Amino acid sequence: MMSRAEAEKLDAADPLAKFRAAFDLPAGVLYLDGNSLGAPPKRALQRLHQTAEREWGSGLIRSWNDAGWIDLPKSCGAKIARLIGARADEVIVADSVSVNLFKLAAALLDARPGAIAVDESEFPTDGYVMEGLARLTGAALVRLKAGETLPAKTRVLVRSLVDYKTGAVADMHATEKEAKAAGAAVIWDLSHATGLIAIDAKRDAIKYAVGCGYKFLNGGPGAPAFLYVAGEEAARLNQPLSGWMGHAAPFDFAPDYRPAEGAARFSSGTPPILSLAALDAALDVFAAIDVKAIEAKARALGDLFLARASSLGLRTISPPVGARRGGHVSLIHENGYAVVQALIARAVIGDFRAPDLMRFGFSPLFLSYTDVFDAAEALADVLTTEEWRDPRFARRGVVT
Amino acid sequence: MMSRAEAEKLDAADPLAKFRAAFDLPAGVLYLDGNSLGAPPKRALQRLHQTAEREWGSGLIRSWNDAGWIDLPKSCGAKIARLIGARADEVIVADSVSVNLFKLAAALLDARPGAIAVDESEFPTDGYVMEGLARLTGAALVRLKAGETLPAKTRVLVRSLVDYKTGAVADMHATEKEAKAAGAAVIWDLSHATGLIAIDAKRDAIKYAVGCGYKFLNGGPGAPAFLYVAGEEAARLNQPLSGWMGHAAPFDFAPDYRPAEGAARFSSGTPPILSLAALDAALDVFAAIDVKAIEAKARALGDLFLARASSLGLRTISPPVGARRGGHVSLIHENGYAVVQALIARAVIGDFRAPDLMRFGFSPLFLSYTDVFDAAEALADVLTTEEWRDPRFARRGVVT
Repeated sequence: MMSRAEAEKLDAADPLAKFRAAFDLPAGVLYLDGNSLGAPPKRALQRLHQTAEREWGSGLIRSWNDAGWIDLPKSCGAKIARLIGARADEVIVADSVSVNLFKLAAALLDARPGAIAVDESEFPTDGYVMEGLARLTGAALVRLKAGETLPAKTRVLVRSLVDYKTGAVADMHATEKEAKAAGAAVIWDLSHATGLIAIDAKRDAIKYAVGCGYKFLNGGPGAPAFLYVAGEEAARLNQPLSGWMGHAAPFDFAPDYRPAEGAARFSSGTPPILSLAALDAALDVFAAIDVKAIEAKARALGDLFLARASSLGLRTISPPVGARRGGHVSLIHENGYAVVQALIARAVIGDFRAPDLMRFGFSPLFLSYTDVFDAAEALADVLTTEEWRDPRFARRGVVT
Repeated sequence: MMSRAEAEKLDAADPLAKFRAAFDLPAGVLYLDGNSLGAPPKRALQRLHQTAEREWGSGLIRSWNDAGWIDLPKSCGAKIARLIGARADEVIVADSVSVNLFKLAAALLDARPGAIAVDESEFPTDGYVMEGLARLTGAALVRLKAGETLPAKTRVLVRSLVDYKTGAVADMHATEKEAKAAGAAVIWDLSHATGLIAIDAKRDAIKYAVGCGYKFLNGGPGAPAFLYVAGEEAARLNQPLSGWMGHAAPFDFAPDYRPAEGAARFSSGTPPILSLAALDAALDVFAAIDVKAIEAKARALGDLFLARASSLGLRTISPPVGARRGGHVSLIHENGYAVVQALIARAVIGDFRAPDLMRFGFSPLFLSYTDVFDAAEALADVLTTEEWRDPRFARRGVVT
């Protein structure tokens, strides 16, 4: 277990420490929920102000060209591409993760029909959307139990790189190999991984992925999502949400759809520019950073927290100290709801997932080792004083 | 033809004149493109600032509940419902027009298979998306020529209430009647109509509609779109983009999809909150206004402009002076691109649609009769002086 002095020493030597200044966080808050919603980068707030007041307010319709709004899905995509080892034109920003998953899976089934497979433990929306696609197309949907082999005739496998509950990191290489053997394509959900886990799409021969913009990318609440498709695959894929923004020449107003080159064909309708501009600026924080350094620090922060939690007798469903892990850990406590509320009352913000999981995220760009040390001490204090038993922390009604 | 003094008199008696103060428009600009992108309501800019700085910046993840983010798709929907004569729970704000059209048409085909029909002259993305749906489901797609009868076995007809080129208003009653006779459901695209044309969904027995938030609703560039489904129909419709936000209990993280009640089942992924908050505030401008007054003024402004254009020898493809019309008119000029550029150089902003259409919109909440009079005089001046022949207004490259 680490002392506060040791945490301070790590902070002093931390090459990422300087990025804390790039964020606008309320004083006194220890924010351990950047895995749900990243904190606002100062430049995202500034950009939003500029886009609203100057571009919308003064530029009006002219800003689609003059301020480059029309290019944002591609330019944002190029910035995300760098973070996952993809080519600039292989990533487009559009819609939500749910909608992008639908587009990509539908396009793959269109090219070659077959079954869809989703792990039972997958983030729910991924399964829900595949349910909808299966119903519409008549494709079979298989919900895989842990460790279950991929059934023959599977065409599409949807899998998260980082599990939203445990923080476990899937084995990309093994998954791709198994899928290939079964004749299936893997669509990676990188929502909990992008900007946190070092991904090299080219090296690992990853062909398809989606992910969100509002977790470790800090793009703002409900920030638009992204979609990655390897260049050699895009040309033969037809996605069904073929709106005008994915047309090769949207402003020709031609009667028939003709898809754009590359990932751009996965755009659909007019994108939400205010949200997109905030994401675009948030991505610039990553411009000079190697994601490997982020992953390493996230793991060290998680280790620090897990070691202290273990000393308190708390069990975890997350990979243990020393193991590879995403940016969050989940601890088990039967009164987890009340404990998380008691922590929030102390301005230590994590989240709770029914029935008994307390989830804490470690965004390495705005959290220091001392922050996480202090948060762990707050947790220790809430538990040893049994402060969580205070009736104001009791669970009432529906918990979101 | 009207004199400026007459225009001033109309302004003095205009009950909508006071709403000009609710908008932030650059000084000296005559903005005749609110039909493409509405001008910013001051309260939308203020709200955006609040949502970014206070809710995201200070509230962080807590704002999903504390600032009501989670309710925005419904609360925005309820505000739009009032403008189209629908019940509060019959409208949801989500995604784009393209994506919403897909969801609604797919759900209708799921309930009862058949062909999809779209007018040849329809706004392109509506046809493109139906192409995508037809390909995915095997449904037939019929592109209707002007005046062509609806083929038997049509299940879904997509039609704009206001034509994006001409501004002509479709006959809702006749369209619904024809569709009913053919056994088809009409999905109305209200993009150019909402907040401009008085619509009474209940009186006219309209059951399905979509529309955008960024034209006459002034919700901001690429503002989220809406979807309307009559209450008695929603319960039997299954839409395929069944993401967690359309689940009856999204935060139960249940393995299987169970749709929410009402239009809310047409939500998909996490919505872009920054863009949604701006739209929500923009809609409050309409709180005390009867859309009938807006429609009447838009028509009067269009009449004023058309009369002057006619005196200049310009032809139009729009409904003539005195006829029912949406919020814009299109004039024909073989050098339309240069004329529009010359007007923009004079801070009179309209838009150009190839090959020869100059399009001008009349947003009644921020334009006065004198504004439109002055814009028409500027057009007269550009034409009589042949100012548009200046080489700097010549067409270069791709025009968007």
